[in-house]
Amino acid sequence: MMDNKGIGVGLMGLGVIGGQVAGVMLERKRLLAEQAGCPVILRKIKVIEPDLSKPQLDEIGRQLFTTDEDEFFATPDMDIVIELIGNENPALAYQRRALSAGKHVVTANKEVIAKHGVDLIALARRNGAGLHYEAAVGGGIPLIAPFQRDLLANEVKGISAIINGTTNYILTSMSREGTDFISALKQAQKLGYAETDPKNDIEGIDAAYKIAILASLAFQSQIKPDDVYCEGISKLTSRDFRYASELGFAIKLLAIAKQYDSSVEVRVHPVFIPQNYFLAKVDGVYNAVMVEGDLVGKVTFIGKGAGPLPTSSAVIADVVSAAREITSGVGCVAAWEPKAGKKIKPMSEIETRFYIRMNIADRAGVLAEIAGVLGDNDISIASAIQKEADELSKTAEIVIMTHPAKEKAVQQALAQLEELEVVKEVNNSIRVEE
Amino acid sequence: MMDNKGIGVGLMGLGVIGGQVAGVMLERKRLLAEQAGCPVILRKIKVIEPDLSKPQLDEIGRQLFTTDEDEFFATPDMDIVIELIGNENPALAYQRRALSAGKHVVTANKEVIAKHGVDLIALARRNGAGLHYEAAVGGGIPLIAPFQRDLLANEVKGISAIINGTTNYILTSMSREGTDFISALKQAQKLGYAETDPKNDIEGIDAAYKIAILASLAFQSQIKPDDVYCEGISKLTSRDFRYASELGFAIKLLAIAKQYDSSVEVRVHPVFIPQNYFLAKVDGVYNAVMVEGDLVGKVTFIGKGAGPLPTSSAVIADVVSAAREITSGVGCVAAWEPKAGKKIKPMSEIETRFYIRMNIADRAGVLAEIAGVLGDNDISIASAIQKEADELSKTAEIVIMTHPAKEKAVQQALAQLEELEVVKEVNNSIRVEE
Repeated sequence: MMDNKGIGVGLMGLGVIGGQVAGVMLERKRLLAEQAGCPVILRKIKVIEPDLSKPQLDEIGRQLFTTDEDEFFATPDMDIVIELIGNENPALAYQRRALSAGKHVVTANKEVIAKHGVDLIALARRNGAGLHYEAAVGGGIPLIAPFQRDLLANEVKGISAIINGTTNYILTSMSREGTDFISALKQAQKLGYAETDPKNDIEGIDAAYKIAILASLAFQSQIKPDDVYCEGISKLTSRDFRYASELGFAIKLLAIAKQYDSSVEVRVHPVFIPQNYFLAKVDGVYNAVMVEGDLVGKVTFIGKGAGPLPTSSAVIADVVSAAREITSGVGCVAAWEPKAGKKIKPMSEIETRFYIRMNIADRAGVLAEIAGVLGDNDISIASAIQKEADELSKTAEIVIMTHPAKEKAVQQALAQLEELEVVKEVNNSIRVEE
Repeated sequence: MMDNKGIGVGLMGLGVIGGQVAGVMLERKRLLAEQAGCPVILRKIKVIEPDLSKPQLDEIGRQLFTTDEDEFFATPDMDIVIELIGNENPALAYQRRALSAGKHVVTANKEVIAKHGVDLIALARRNGAGLHYEAAVGGGIPLIAPFQRDLLANEVKGISAIINGTTNYILTSMSREGTDFISALKQAQKLGYAETDPKNDIEGIDAAYKIAILASLAFQSQIKPDDVYCEGISKLTSRDFRYASELGFAIKLLAIAKQYDSSVEVRVHPVFIPQNYFLAKVDGVYNAVMVEGDLVGKVTFIGKGAGPLPTSSAVIADVVSAAREITSGVGCVAAWEPKAGKKIKPMSEIETRFYIRMNIADRAGVLAEIAGVLGDNDISIASAIQKEADELSKTAEIVIMTHPAKEKAVQQALAQLEELEVVKEVNNSIRVEE
């Protein structure tokens, strides 16, 4: 496929990420040629609407632009297609079209990869092409390649990850400044760290896509986004942070994947983690992924998980990898071939400790009644804090830390507690990871 | 080179690491075959003295052993040689012999790679083979491959790394328990974290090998171990740790590499780093490597940097990579080709802040005299702590934190301070990295 003309690249999407990638490809032409073993040339850029006012257009070369999909795919000598459009459609169709034509695809599209990665890789193999998605998880932090290469001798026991910068930024603000969720979200939006419609981030959907991708790779399984239990951060309040800190914990939105003999568990939700854990110290827009392998032990990768510069770092690395594979005539070496499927452990079977915060009537015997409900559900109390009785409403706040208990039992107990006359409200319940 | 018989592997050295690698290769035969695309078979093991009492020998198969170098290299269908003998000789000769015969070499030998890596890679290329040394730095933490692949689009600005587990274990003990250096070293030796002859570790030589390897890769230069300024940890005392903690710093043995327009600086020495830095929180036998790239920003890799299990993880990954290269007919794709050499910045030109601890006469005017010497050398004082005057000896201890100053000026000032009648002793001087 390669000839003296070098490796041809087509780019789909010229937003902040696409613009950065195009810029790096032009600026570092020489470096890329050295690394790839031959020139890497941008041949075509597919845009929705060529924004002719952009000064960068002249630099890139106006003749490269097209709004027409068919024209884009008809570009001669285009060996690699970089898809940076985002979202599921039409990105998925574009990736399929490229792979079907034997072109390598490089993408940062976590949604498409999480939902269709296994199918796309199969399609790539059938057509002697490759699918490269290092940029889909953790921006420029090397994560996909380490699973495909460096950690391959390991039985991966589990992954614990902070893989959404928006929520980590919000949680860090709430923890440091004692602000409530809404103010922290607004601040994040003002600074460009959260989108106008923040749902995908704050509800944990983005993190679920990413952990589905990592867990699929790590466990050689096909974990779909729907397999991931997903709970966002919008219920957290400044009171939860105060109690967490008092009890020696940080609150983080963790993506967790664990592998057992015959099942895997994959979940995204806020957790209490001990303050002295590494992940507790990862603040702001930083991401961190901790992988535990049976040989390597715990390995942690930390870095900025988003933004045009880090993402372009990963995209360009993938372009060079693809170019090396093309020049050496190697097809897809990716090792994401799902094994005989392990069962997804239902959330109800998962066992963790719990933090439970409630408003209760401020009178004698209440704690005994609560303990009774928990005991009936086989949940034992590790510690309890009661304080701040409110004279006016005659209510008090109580925080209970449980010993490890089955999710199902805890949810049932919480429903029963809500029914108790002495319980005004169960304000929040947060799992503990230790 | 590959045929239906699969990929043949020869192993040199059967110490704790070699034994673990052999064990994993036998136990995970199926996994390796899947990952490599064909069976990976252990064909011969070179040992010095076959220890026939080892029970593992039966498992491995006694017929695989030889003490004879020529017999080892004459093994038919041996495509990859794993060198796990350690030290420079005869390991270097063995690697050369293997590469000259067109065999891929996988090694954990940091000394050989640091001193001869560039030459060996050239030799590998000439013979259509590959040199793989992921295990040489940071045990199972992916470090070499990320530089060769994931970070290749970046201009690497610098590396700051804790890459010697022995010294980090000793420093952690000194910091947590207030023990002195000798006790901490003895404890580390008792636990197997330090060798009987600990010189290579505590004097920073091991760390110098590793940073020479990483800096060469990151800066596409040839940095030799002799280019690395190297200072160990044996001069540190519990007093230094007490002051560090009081001033908001941790003490770590850091390996530092920085790249400038026309020069690079590479050094290993104890440093004060702010307690809130990630690296300050990496304790015990853990290693951490922070890389700063112009696109990716700061990326940090943390994990266990030594031990048979983590090291075998990296060795096996390299074996599979080598096997993939062989089956696909690709030669060495490593990108360690030194560019037109950048100058090594002499240590005397390096500018840092300094912590200086002295014993001085406990009388008026002493601080003025000291400040005078520092001022004469263009060093300004950021802060000073004086306390614990000793009634009997009429001496006091003073700690000075300087503003950034040239190494040359500081060393000159320290020599002049030693000469002052009022200075009983300059106890220690430690650079600050911020």
